[in-house]
Amino acid sequence: MSRAVILLSGGLDSATCLLIAREEGFETFALSFDYGQRHRLELERARALAARYGASAHRIVRLDFPGEGASALTDPTIPVPLDSLGSEPIPPTYVPARNTLFLAHALAWAEVVGAPEIFIGANALDYSGYPDCRDEFLRAFEAAANLGTRAGVEGRRFRIRAPLLELSKAQIVALAHRLGLDFELTSSCYDPQNGGRPCGRCDACLLRERGFSEADLEDPLLIPRRQP
Amino acid sequence: MSRAVILLSGGLDSATCLLIAREEGFETFALSFDYGQRHRLELERARALAARYGASAHRIVRLDFPGEGASALTDPTIPVPLDSLGSEPIPPTYVPARNTLFLAHALAWAEVVGAPEIFIGANALDYSGYPDCRDEFLRAFEAAANLGTRAGVEGRRFRIRAPLLELSKAQIVALAHRLGLDFELTSSCYDPQNGGRPCGRCDACLLRERGFSEADLEDPLLIPRRQP
Repeated sequence: MSRAVILLSGGLDSATCLLIAREEGFETFALSFDYGQRHRLELERARALAARYGASAHRIVRLDFPGEGASALTDPTIPVPLDSLGSEPIPPTYVPARNTLFLAHALAWAEVVGAPEIFIGANALDYSGYPDCRDEFLRAFEAAANLGTRAGVEGRRFRIRAPLLELSKAQIVALAHRLGLDFELTSSCYDPQNGGRPCGRCDACLLRERGFSEADLEDPLLIPRRQP
Repeated sequence: MSRAVILLSGGLDSATCLLIAREEGFETFALSFDYGQRHRLELERARALAARYGASAHRIVRLDFPGEGASALTDPTIPVPLDSLGSEPIPPTYVPARNTLFLAHALAWAEVVGAPEIFIGANALDYSGYPDCRDEFLRAFEAAANLGTRAGVEGRRFRIRAPLLELSKAQIVALAHRLGLDFELTSSCYDPQNGGRPCGRCDACLLRERGFSEADLEDPLLIPRRQP
């Protein structure tokens, strides 16, 4: 059985990637990062997802991001933008070189466990502002990965898989639904105040809500808010 | 004053890079990694070098490498090869994706502090067996860095500098000597048993000894061994 490393944040997109890899028959190795993110509940969700969907291993890597002030996702003094979806070319939730770091760690683990494929839930439509969510970056990283590893130079080439790259949020929600994802296990909100309930106003919540609505499905995370 | 991030292991090569960057007029940001390496004395040397040569900041990033058994440099059960210089295409001291990880962290910090240049002491002659010490890998990583960061896409391009890439160890020793490096502050030995004294038998010691000898200079680390 071929192996794959899955970058698993605990959000909807990476959970969908885990299910895609499983559907394709991969033995899955889930990789999450503890980088002092404000929405740490994601890590609990990642644990639950890895367990529920049969990952052979789940690593949580402690990751030091440099400096304060680098991103609204890591610095509590920078407000998470609300009601501002699409208003800035690169949003303040951009974390410097984040996907480069995530992929570098995934690559190291992939080489150790002999996994030729690395899945990342990058999406170029909804997150067009993030430079490291674009196909040209992912292909460039893949090229570097195959030049800078023993496996790569010996011909066991790595592939960076981003199966959600060109999908709309509605398409992702529909795909996840078809694959049987328990949406209640996922977390998307950038705001840590709500104990896992969507704040309904940050970019991630707005995208998720729009996705469910366009897919004509109900987000189980929202049901308790509607029926207090 | 333009800024540069220097990957500083505490060894001779990275120390030389620090002095080259200083000579070129950069304000230097030294970056070291604590990855459970067996030759941890390197980190002490890195601290001393950063302080002595006026780095504006020195970060030591705790880095989780995956799995045991990945490398003789991180797993105490794998022997560091002795007296075997050049005998294997990729030596057991190869650490999966190490330079990819180091450069990813350097890139994140470089973006945060606004440093367009990243110095790495990679060398293609002596370490030809390491795939991530080759120019084609470094250029591929640079391309990915410029596609995957805000600075890169906004035109503040990153450069990965590897000024020692094509130098022999003798040339590096001579260059470091000319730049005034205090060799006693550097550590090269892979073997942790000797408290910073060269074992004289691992690849790193053999290369260093040959370099000093061909440069017609004396390694101060060896003098106490000769005069017990």
